[in-house]
Amino acid sequence: MNKLLKTVLLFSAAISIIPSGTAFADDKLETATTKFVDANGVKFSYRTLGPKAGTPLIFLQHFTGNMDAWDPAVVNALAKNRPVVVFNNRGVGSTNGVVADNITQMTTDAYAFIQALGYKQVDLLGFSLGGFIAQELAAQHPELVRKVILAGTTYQGGGNNLMKVLGEAFSRENVQDPRDYLFFSQSDAGKQAAAAFLSRVYARQAGRDPESGKEIADAHGKALIVWTSTPDPEFKTLKAIQQQVLVVTGSNDTMLPTEGSITLFKEIKNAQLVLYPDSNHGSIFQYHDAFVNTADFFLSH
Amino acid sequence: MNKLLKTVLLFSAAISIIPSGTAFADDKLETATTKFVDANGVKFSYRTLGPKAGTPLIFLQHFTGNMDAWDPAVVNALAKNRPVVVFNNRGVGSTNGVVADNITQMTTDAYAFIQALGYKQVDLLGFSLGGFIAQELAAQHPELVRKVILAGTTYQGGGNNLMKVLGEAFSRENVQDPRDYLFFSQSDAGKQAAAAFLSRVYARQAGRDPESGKEIADAHGKALIVWTSTPDPEFKTLKAIQQQVLVVTGSNDTMLPTEGSITLFKEIKNAQLVLYPDSNHGSIFQYHDAFVNTADFFLSH
Repeated sequence: MNKLLKTVLLFSAAISIIPSGTAFADDKLETATTKFVDANGVKFSYRTLGPKAGTPLIFLQHFTGNMDAWDPAVVNALAKNRPVVVFNNRGVGSTNGVVADNITQMTTDAYAFIQALGYKQVDLLGFSLGGFIAQELAAQHPELVRKVILAGTTYQGGGNNLMKVLGEAFSRENVQDPRDYLFFSQSDAGKQAAAAFLSRVYARQAGRDPESGKEIADAHGKALIVWTSTPDPEFKTLKAIQQQVLVVTGSNDTMLPTEGSITLFKEIKNAQLVLYPDSNHGSIFQYHDAFVNTADFFLSH
Repeated sequence: MNKLLKTVLLFSAAISIIPSGTAFADDKLETATTKFVDANGVKFSYRTLGPKAGTPLIFLQHFTGNMDAWDPAVVNALAKNRPVVVFNNRGVGSTNGVVADNITQMTTDAYAFIQALGYKQVDLLGFSLGGFIAQELAAQHPELVRKVILAGTTYQGGGNNLMKVLGEAFSRENVQDPRDYLFFSQSDAGKQAAAAFLSRVYARQAGRDPESGKEIADAHGKALIVWTSTPDPEFKTLKAIQQQVLVVTGSNDTMLPTEGSITLFKEIKNAQLVLYPDSNHGSIFQYHDAFVNTADFFLSH
């Protein structure tokens, strides 16, 4: 090949793939190395993806969820344009310690974990119970938290149908994984999306996080139920959140009702609301492409 | 310049600008040629932008609005990936005929206009009163209408505060253009967005559409008030809409209350809802970049 042409083509390829001044860490949740960092007396397990430069996006996980419970379609896509960090709360997955049973402890731990990584400013994506932690962190640490995505979540005192819907999910015959019922609508489209989601979250072979058992379910269940049952009639936490917030959920979030997301939108000063059709608690997984498109724009502008 | 390098650079420039197999018509609303087509006994004025290939996006305009009332930042950006058509309703701007005073007539005319252009399938973006026409077209012509964007609008019988808010808008001193008050929030950010919007809509110099006067305001006001005051308690129109719909408005739509958009989302089978913070009726102009990002994805997937 002509040397000049080769140089031009290589240069073009380089500028289209690699952001200037950055190096890539892992780029897939399914194969990313699990690392550890000490904070608050706990050895936190975590994985980092994406470029090293940019405001890191910290994922805050749902009730009983470990790192492998995140949807690679969401995590990997959002890691294209920024560093992404997933981790396990105290006592969950490959993080040691006694599992926390309240949102205050989880918030303190998440803050300590972020500090231990040395980040001065981060964005947050909190899903379900992780959204409670994201609200608390944003309200308490405005200097640390830049932007927040609240997915499938609600406000303090917003109520929940956790026990009822969990009961329904497990009362079915041949339950392989309850998330097909808990996260997705039961339409044909919802069922197809559930199957695709489950194949994605089980794609990782080596070094999967330990699954959660009864101890974690009990502690996290208590944390979720107490927080969503403790009224905050003046919305003090929401009123303290001055950051840009993106609120997202499904048209029929059965565990944390959709109306709670509408309230988050109304009571947070600078919130955008996105509600997806024919969907449930896990709408960001059912509509992962559309969600990533909106979330990436929200984080980048 | 080296001939080979020049060829490579020209080729690179070409593939980055021109989609394969298409030719560009005009690419800016501010300079696009005004054309005419006969339909339903009326000579409709219209402009087309963007590539010739793809499902055309037809813009349906608000109460009294002519073609130059569209925001070039929205129209031009959406015309990058599809043909876009703006036009004037009967008796508005450079379209002749007696101005229509009801949504039924406007829907019949819009359908005839689209047929006259020879399109077999289209997408619709209906803003405010244009959203009423979009709902009627989608419900009545499922074979013609593929996807629908409903911006700053409501459902039949959803009520309105048109006269009150118009009165407020015009009761201020030194009103240059009431849209700063009607379309935007009154925060500093809203006022800045309003000024930017007005500079964009007044950018066109040559061949501007004639402005609307009292006759159009009276007829369109009647159409808007009658349609939003005529109950459709079983949501027959909304239930008939099977297409994918994107519903968008501001956190505080003062003329057509935001709650109406939440109802559109709840009652249309396949609707996504987007509500922007600190915004009013014209949220798609205030957040034009974010809206275009979401709308372009919605139309393209």
